[in-house]
Amino acid sequence: MDALPLIDRTPSAYAYPLLIKQLLTTPLAVNPDQEIVYRDQSRYSYRQFRQRIGQLASSLRSAGVQPGDTVAVMDWDSHRYLEAYFAVPMMGAVLMTTNVRLSPDQITYTLNHSGAKALLVHADFLPVLQEIRPRLETVQTFILIADGQTLALPEGFGGEYETLLGLASADYPFPDFDENTRATTFYTTGTTGLPKGVYFSHRQLVLHTLATMGALTSAVDQGRIHRDDVYMPMTPMFHVHAWGLPYIATLMGLKQVYPGRYIPDTLLALIAKEKVTFSHGVPTLLHMVLNHPAAAQTDLRGWKMIIGGSALSQGLAQTAVERGIDVFTGYGMSETCPILTLAQIKTPLQGNAERELQVRTTTGLPIPLVDLRIVDTNMQDVPHNGTASGEIVVRAPWLTQGYFQDAPNSEVLWEGGYLHTNDIGVIDAHGYLRVTDRIKDVIKTGGEWISSLELEDLISRHPAVSEAAVIAVNDARWGERPMALVVLRQGCTASAQDIREHLTHFANQGHISKFAVPEQVQFVESIARTSVGKLNKRQLRQTYQSAQAPAPTAQ
Amino acid sequence: MDALPLIDRTPSAYAYPLLIKQLLTTPLAVNPDQEIVYRDQSRYSYRQFRQRIGQLASSLRSAGVQPGDTVAVMDWDSHRYLEAYFAVPMMGAVLMTTNVRLSPDQITYTLNHSGAKALLVHADFLPVLQEIRPRLETVQTFILIADGQTLALPEGFGGEYETLLGLASADYPFPDFDENTRATTFYTTGTTGLPKGVYFSHRQLVLHTLATMGALTSAVDQGRIHRDDVYMPMTPMFHVHAWGLPYIATLMGLKQVYPGRYIPDTLLALIAKEKVTFSHGVPTLLHMVLNHPAAAQTDLRGWKMIIGGSALSQGLAQTAVERGIDVFTGYGMSETCPILTLAQIKTPLQGNAERELQVRTTTGLPIPLVDLRIVDTNMQDVPHNGTASGEIVVRAPWLTQGYFQDAPNSEVLWEGGYLHTNDIGVIDAHGYLRVTDRIKDVIKTGGEWISSLELEDLISRHPAVSEAAVIAVNDARWGERPMALVVLRQGCTASAQDIREHLTHFANQGHISKFAVPEQVQFVESIARTSVGKLNKRQLRQTYQSAQAPAPTAQ
Repeated sequence: MDALPLIDRTPSAYAYPLLIKQLLTTPLAVNPDQEIVYRDQSRYSYRQFRQRIGQLASSLRSAGVQPGDTVAVMDWDSHRYLEAYFAVPMMGAVLMTTNVRLSPDQITYTLNHSGAKALLVHADFLPVLQEIRPRLETVQTFILIADGQTLALPEGFGGEYETLLGLASADYPFPDFDENTRATTFYTTGTTGLPKGVYFSHRQLVLHTLATMGALTSAVDQGRIHRDDVYMPMTPMFHVHAWGLPYIATLMGLKQVYPGRYIPDTLLALIAKEKVTFSHGVPTLLHMVLNHPAAAQTDLRGWKMIIGGSALSQGLAQTAVERGIDVFTGYGMSETCPILTLAQIKTPLQGNAERELQVRTTTGLPIPLVDLRIVDTNMQDVPHNGTASGEIVVRAPWLTQGYFQDAPNSEVLWEGGYLHTNDIGVIDAHGYLRVTDRIKDVIKTGGEWISSLELEDLISRHPAVSEAAVIAVNDARWGERPMALVVLRQGCTASAQDIREHLTHFANQGHISKFAVPEQVQFVESIARTSVGKLNKRQLRQTYQSAQAPAPTAQ
Repeated sequence: MDALPLIDRTPSAYAYPLLIKQLLTTPLAVNPDQEIVYRDQSRYSYRQFRQRIGQLASSLRSAGVQPGDTVAVMDWDSHRYLEAYFAVPMMGAVLMTTNVRLSPDQITYTLNHSGAKALLVHADFLPVLQEIRPRLETVQTFILIADGQTLALPEGFGGEYETLLGLASADYPFPDFDENTRATTFYTTGTTGLPKGVYFSHRQLVLHTLATMGALTSAVDQGRIHRDDVYMPMTPMFHVHAWGLPYIATLMGLKQVYPGRYIPDTLLALIAKEKVTFSHGVPTLLHMVLNHPAAAQTDLRGWKMIIGGSALSQGLAQTAVERGIDVFTGYGMSETCPILTLAQIKTPLQGNAERELQVRTTTGLPIPLVDLRIVDTNMQDVPHNGTASGEIVVRAPWLTQGYFQDAPNSEVLWEGGYLHTNDIGVIDAHGYLRVTDRIKDVIKTGGEWISSLELEDLISRHPAVSEAAVIAVNDARWGERPMALVVLRQGCTASAQDIREHLTHFANQGHISKFAVPEQVQFVESIARTSVGKLNKRQLRQTYQSAQAPAPTAQ
């Protein structure tokens, strides 16, 4: 269509680019004395937070960081990380959040690929740094995070974080610039190939903050965040902006609590002491906290928690709900900033415990501005009837516009103008999305697709089961067959036959095909996970692929 | 600074412009069966609403409206207006919301100045149209809104609204375009000069929606909107997008109720029947509803109402609170889209009825992304101590970037890169803004400034007083002196001396200067208001200026 009339801008008018610095405007005007807490080590006001942001930028500038440079961080969840979330993009530099759980080779690759010029590194990661330092090609400035310890500065380091901040001016003149300026980058580890870099602009992060905040605050009661909540992340801050919640918490002026390294004791103590009411994390971490001995003595009622990263089983959700925790699923990925959907329970679906549990563990409803479709291989929409499945493809104002310096994979990601999640899902009549599987994790057997996620969820409902993973193993006759790996609860016993009977029960009720009941059920001590806590299906397949699959017993 | 690296966009990636059409994406996915109600005449689902938006665009296109054209509307608050809020901008045209309360000359001026090509006009306004039609220079297409009546189509009309929609296709292909495309325009009537046009882009309206929604939903309980609220506007939809709430209500998927022309009977009946819980309007309308005989029989508990347009007096607020209504002030103006601040009560300030009332009637806290300052004449910030006053100047992503085709006034509006509100305010230690006066309404007497708003509020607290206005009258000795115009409650009596003693009481307590107590208190039947319900100080001054001012009795 022809060009339409744009709004006239008078020369003096302020066009207001969407910049991360503006997320600070309201909290500083409305709630400057609100607290930010770091473990039992420090607490300070938003006013001081703003000063330290200025000091961090001044320190980085003195250390040679220029606008446009990339600054990498290796730290646990801390007030320092929050400071970097703001200071680095606000000075026009790019924040690279290093996944410290990757292998030394992968960390080396991601730091080099991002072009990181400065690296802020917690003392705990000095051994890794020591190992990879000779191979780092771009980092010129190293800053030590001593985290309260008295440590000698390693050779070639430009200073220690707190020392540098103490010497620096809080009055850094944060400039305006194009809202499409790159603000953050980090790397996603697929199950194959090298890590891929995703990247987000100031505009994208501001819009993700507003839309996610709008969805979380709009709920009547369940699944809701409000101004009096106390926020503590339980997702690493290197991982997709800790789901964007630190930006939301800051814009809302919430009290924020940063727990450092995740130690169940510390987490539980902070929840109790600081009266934490809002968190988010992977199911494993929730599982770990709930099963810790100290959990029994901690009042967890009123704690709200978004669960993501992998599917929340109904078993775990029920345990949490019984403890008074409002758990619900969030869905997204590194490529999507990340939030796309939240499993808030609509009022008409409330009041029935079983149905509420189903909703909590579903993938959720799209948040404002998210255009989410389930499509067939020709990009045609499949019906929203709760059974027809298709690939989940999305548009939203905050999706990575490609993989960093990787044009071929970028085009695959965005084929047809929608971002391809590589997840398979169904949408029910209430609008709830349910991810049934990863495209690559689906088990293709006898011409049918079996959802490994669904089987994992059903197995987890067996009272003796603590955790389960289902993988595909090669099968001469059927192509692939499902295999179940099961961790039993402490003190519980169950046989493979028990698990199969448990599943056959669901098959008899029509919940799954009888053909989906796995012949092989193997009891294991633990299940391999990726660096961000997801089931590591690739490794599990490699480990268990050799197992011999007998002929199926059920069809 | 040098250009910074912008995010790379892979060619297939969707850049997602912020367009009004995308406000419909989530409600249609999540809540398509939700209702939109028009008086007792019609109710339909969001699904049908979306179809009618397509039909309206198809009708307009058939009637010759091109993208880029301006489409004007003269209607009461209706589902049709809501349809126009979406369909017109979504097709790339500009929605001109005509202020039907202006004089015929002013309506003519604004329609001509906006270049309106099509006009949708409710039957009630045909007499006005008849009068001005020969002078309309740009309107080529007239569409009648019969509103359920059987009417002959006036000569030269292109059709009737419902008839045209019935003939049109719902499948209008709404295109993508630049988010800075002009979406809406309307005219603000200052107290002097010709009406001035303001204008807003798609991007601005989407951002106003997200930020205002975020502020309204974030509150813990008081001053909060949530997904189960039922929305009914009581601000004309021609006036600053009905404060943006129809867009917010739609994005949130709320049940919406449109009351047509404001008749207290109808409003009260709809509140009761449709269980309305969220509204907004000027104090006069709240006053009118509360004083209507039917109000006594209507349960108004749980009704939330934003009050704006002019100051909410503590007297009126208290009456409303006693009826169980959660009233609180919103602040903004035509130039600001409009919301800038909301008087939500912070939790630590709750629990004390008197203090709550003070907060409800203050101007409020800035909403997300609003950079609001109070400055002296050199644009230097004045202290936020609750007493130092300065002009309120603002930046936000949704402020008009000028007056339409009026470069000189645009530059005055934006002098120094901040939008000048021409309001004087103070900010207290809690961050609450309080507008103390319009720059032009302040009373300058004996070298001091007296706030007419403050006097009006104090007078309104007298039990016999229904409404009050304070204006400046010329005074040979002091320059200006305040004069009070008072409407008494039905059945109540009070003398001028009673009112002066009431004010002297506050002066003795130090709330106001003794010099602020007016010598002249005049009892009147009603107080003149502007077309949007504000006290018409200009007219009041003209009417009462001739009154003789005696020498002041108090200093």
